[in-house]
Amino acid sequence: MSKRIITISREFGSGGRFIGENVAGKLGIKYFDKEIITQIAEKSGLSSEFIAEKAELSPKKGLFSYAFTGRNLSGKSLEDIIYEEQRKIILSIAEKEACVLIGRNADFILKDRDDVLNVFIHGHEAQKTERICQMYHVQEAEAIKLLQDVDKRRSLNYNFYTERKWGMASNYALTLNSSELGYEMCEKVIIDCFRK
Amino acid sequence: MSKRIITISREFGSGGRFIGENVAGKLGIKYFDKEIITQIAEKSGLSSEFIAEKAELSPKKGLFSYAFTGRNLSGKSLEDIIYEEQRKIILSIAEKEACVLIGRNADFILKDRDDVLNVFIHGHEAQKTERICQMYHVQEAEAIKLLQDVDKRRSLNYNFYTERKWGMASNYALTLNSSELGYEMCEKVIIDCFRK
Repeated sequence: MSKRIITISREFGSGGRFIGENVAGKLGIKYFDKEIITQIAEKSGLSSEFIAEKAELSPKKGLFSYAFTGRNLSGKSLEDIIYEEQRKIILSIAEKEACVLIGRNADFILKDRDDVLNVFIHGHEAQKTERICQMYHVQEAEAIKLLQDVDKRRSLNYNFYTERKWGMASNYALTLNSSELGYEMCEKVIIDCFRK
Repeated sequence: MSKRIITISREFGSGGRFIGENVAGKLGIKYFDKEIITQIAEKSGLSSEFIAEKAELSPKKGLFSYAFTGRNLSGKSLEDIIYEEQRKIILSIAEKEACVLIGRNADFILKDRDDVLNVFIHGHEAQKTERICQMYHVQEAEAIKLLQDVDKRRSLNYNFYTERKWGMASNYALTLNSSELGYEMCEKVIIDCFRK
């Protein structure tokens, strides 16, 4: 089965988003990242910032926070409602067009399709820290804290909603260490595997 | 730093050994798998079959078996002695020549070198089962049992000696699902990343 969709999960600072954007550009297909959040915001009336926080990075303080968040009459937490909305949007995007999807557990949400190439990008701490310092104009110590915090929350969110383990090779067709291979080689390998 | 050595860790039935042998052939470099066992056998006076069992697949019945195996005067178990011998042989091979090394925790043993490309090959259960049926002339149920047993023992052995988790993307520069990508594409990607 030839591939139409690429999902890219990534460690914070690994350049996964940048690689995904370049891959989409080189293949001439659409790229979805913040657009998904905008779509959820439009449908739910919540702010984009609030959704960005809840949609991929929750639970902020570990799984117990789920027990204490606001719930609606159906007993669903706000996180669950946003997640369900996100799931529907990702399923509908995948139905419509060839694209690159960044993060948001898209690999798991699209697991029943056979035209999806799932990719995970990770890297060495030193290189990720350097990139975070440059991109967010922070000092090294803060960058390391940020890196650990964001990845911990992405990982908790993924493990909670998918019952898989974030970063295990078996979840993905392809995982790449961008610090060792370089961004360009990562892009080339993803494109080769997509076109196969 | 350009690469001289490729280590290939693999799930049983994923074709990792076959891919490794082809990669070595195409690159014109040496391939080490059973040769390591032969070298340990020559040095230790133990049989190759016994070492094959102990060197990568121990502990057979979980970590507790370590407590009950024979120990020499230094308090080391036979598994530890074989592992130490294997470690020395892998370090010495890496010193001498460009090569492909299959399994045996070589990724971890060579972690202090920067000329090593670490690869992990895995696959879908259906395809791995089919391959095991063909290669070992067994029925499906037996192939599935074999697959689970061998991977469980490889994983226990790796986790015990390395304090890492077998199959986590972060241990490897590159992980590939051979059922999705096909053996030829896996070989191409490994060679491209090696030559980079």
